[in-house]
Amino acid sequence: MAAITRRGFGAATALAALGASRVLGQSGPARTGTPLDVVAQPGAEPLPSWNDGASRQAILGFVQAVTTAGSPDFVPPVERIAVFDNDGTLWCELPTVQLMFALDRVRQLAPQHPDWAGRQPFKAALEGDTAGLAGAGERGIVELIMATHAGMTEDDFTAIVADWIAMARHPKFGRLYTRTVYQPMLELLGFLRASGFKTFIVSGGGIEFMRVWTERTYGIPPEQVIGSTIRTQFRLSDQGAGELLRLPAVDFVDDGPGKPEAIGKFIGRRPIAAFGNSDGDLQMLQYATTGPGRHFGLLVHHDDAEREVAYDRSSQFGRLNQALDLSSAAGWTVVSMKKDWRTVFPAG
Amino acid sequence: MAAITRRGFGAATALAALGASRVLGQSGPARTGTPLDVVAQPGAEPLPSWNDGASRQAILGFVQAVTTAGSPDFVPPVERIAVFDNDGTLWCELPTVQLMFALDRVRQLAPQHPDWAGRQPFKAALEGDTAGLAGAGERGIVELIMATHAGMTEDDFTAIVADWIAMARHPKFGRLYTRTVYQPMLELLGFLRASGFKTFIVSGGGIEFMRVWTERTYGIPPEQVIGSTIRTQFRLSDQGAGELLRLPAVDFVDDGPGKPEAIGKFIGRRPIAAFGNSDGDLQMLQYATTGPGRHFGLLVHHDDAEREVAYDRSSQFGRLNQALDLSSAAGWTVVSMKKDWRTVFPAG
Repeated sequence: MAAITRRGFGAATALAALGASRVLGQSGPARTGTPLDVVAQPGAEPLPSWNDGASRQAILGFVQAVTTAGSPDFVPPVERIAVFDNDGTLWCELPTVQLMFALDRVRQLAPQHPDWAGRQPFKAALEGDTAGLAGAGERGIVELIMATHAGMTEDDFTAIVADWIAMARHPKFGRLYTRTVYQPMLELLGFLRASGFKTFIVSGGGIEFMRVWTERTYGIPPEQVIGSTIRTQFRLSDQGAGELLRLPAVDFVDDGPGKPEAIGKFIGRRPIAAFGNSDGDLQMLQYATTGPGRHFGLLVHHDDAEREVAYDRSSQFGRLNQALDLSSAAGWTVVSMKKDWRTVFPAG
Repeated sequence: MAAITRRGFGAATALAALGASRVLGQSGPARTGTPLDVVAQPGAEPLPSWNDGASRQAILGFVQAVTTAGSPDFVPPVERIAVFDNDGTLWCELPTVQLMFALDRVRQLAPQHPDWAGRQPFKAALEGDTAGLAGAGERGIVELIMATHAGMTEDDFTAIVADWIAMARHPKFGRLYTRTVYQPMLELLGFLRASGFKTFIVSGGGIEFMRVWTERTYGIPPEQVIGSTIRTQFRLSDQGAGELLRLPAVDFVDDGPGKPEAIGKFIGRRPIAAFGNSDGDLQMLQYATTGPGRHFGLLVHHDDAEREVAYDRSSQFGRLNQALDLSSAAGWTVVSMKKDWRTVFPAG
């Protein structure tokens, strides 16, 4: 999906749900553990939550081709790199979860910042003023992120996110955000890994925000999560412990062309499969699917108003335009959530 | 070791060997393959090239403690992150191999740049003028690196490095540089991996320069190599293929405090073991060995003039000062290459 700083989208969608994300006690997530929904049953048919149409067959055909020894399309396991966008591809992106976190954090920190009541974008955030927050634009969103994501150590930030993600719920579905992940995509992650792939997230979202819960939720460890970054500074605490301080300065926005650039930096090997859902994923798909050998590109198309949300080029959240236009010529699989997926979210 | 841009050291040491690295035909290394020297024999004693002294015992004791289920020091496999400096820790750093590459590349490109004959630092590089190159300082070294490492695609750069590393030899030992790796450290890498560790390189060297040969040489895949980076730009070729162009601009220098900062960004999890050989590794060791739980820090001390090179604080290459001063209080193991290692380089 879009980087947290993208033009207004995050603000608009986040504000649609302002004040809604909240609830309940639950024990904080550890960084380890196996996500139950990802584990494949030995001997079972792969991808059980996918209807057996062209999309499922395209996935199965690709995986069979690159994993069959002797096949002209065979790819050695070390080169089986698959990259996934997160927001809108692996979990629900309306509202933008990380912006929900930022707004909750503004409310939490407000007593220590009396000036926020009269200063944008904080005033708008505190009052749930959609128009005001949208009017603050990208600069406003960045200011909001910096005020809520910086100024503490990495360890402290991790603890803050862990506490929040254990409790915050989706305003429409009432589920914990970590349960608004897509069951068919969890199965796809597990199937690829069982087929010798290494799975990475390449997201516009904040790298440290995601790393807190991706291992438990997706089975993807921190070192396989790539995202937008802010600068950090190493220092020794008064007790002599090394720690990383989060600085209020953007380091890198992992969106659009930034995605293949980040893949080059973090992975150093061209992926052979890429999965996205918006124009922010276009260049990542182009990079993964124009190298030598067999490759695979997939776009998740949000066309299921009943079970999730329907939006693409024509909606107020329309961000799937150019990638959709190019998908046919590029040979990318366009997944209809409505037709291709038996279920959307994990049971329970 | 030091970043390629560090104050004069790289230049001085590289120039000591100017004009010497070269030779022979060999087929280019693929990015895949298992390094023979790293493979542990099942049932065999670990670390056979280490004399059975305090250093070897410290390693074995640490690994046993963190891998024994039920031990108070037990660490789950996903958290067993070990980080290694490269130059001077995993392979010989005198001369700086990447600078040898840059100088060879200057000679190769010189016919296309007639102005280099009269312009520093290129003139000095072409003439083997030690003093002139040292006088060009950090700015000169950066200019040299940019002229030789940028302006092509990642794929093309990979091919250039692969061709060079398959042929270039160490001026003193006559070996391919990829055979000036330390046999005891290869065994250590293999032993840690066999014990459930994930091994990373965190080096001042260029990330793409290293990734070409680290998998075959150390068994460390590209995505577990962290280093200094230059900026890249995604573009589509005339044929519509996505590619990354290497720009002549420094992105990040992975040295000193930059090492833990890069670990935070790339790995997102505090290592529990760190291995280095110079003050450029100090903050990485501090970061890895001051977290909660059991941890391990190690410094390779180059004290073997007969089999390799002897240098530390007192030599012209002296860069092991503060880290050595702090090692005792910090509980870091200081390895004497002379006393602790049965052999230095792989056989043959």
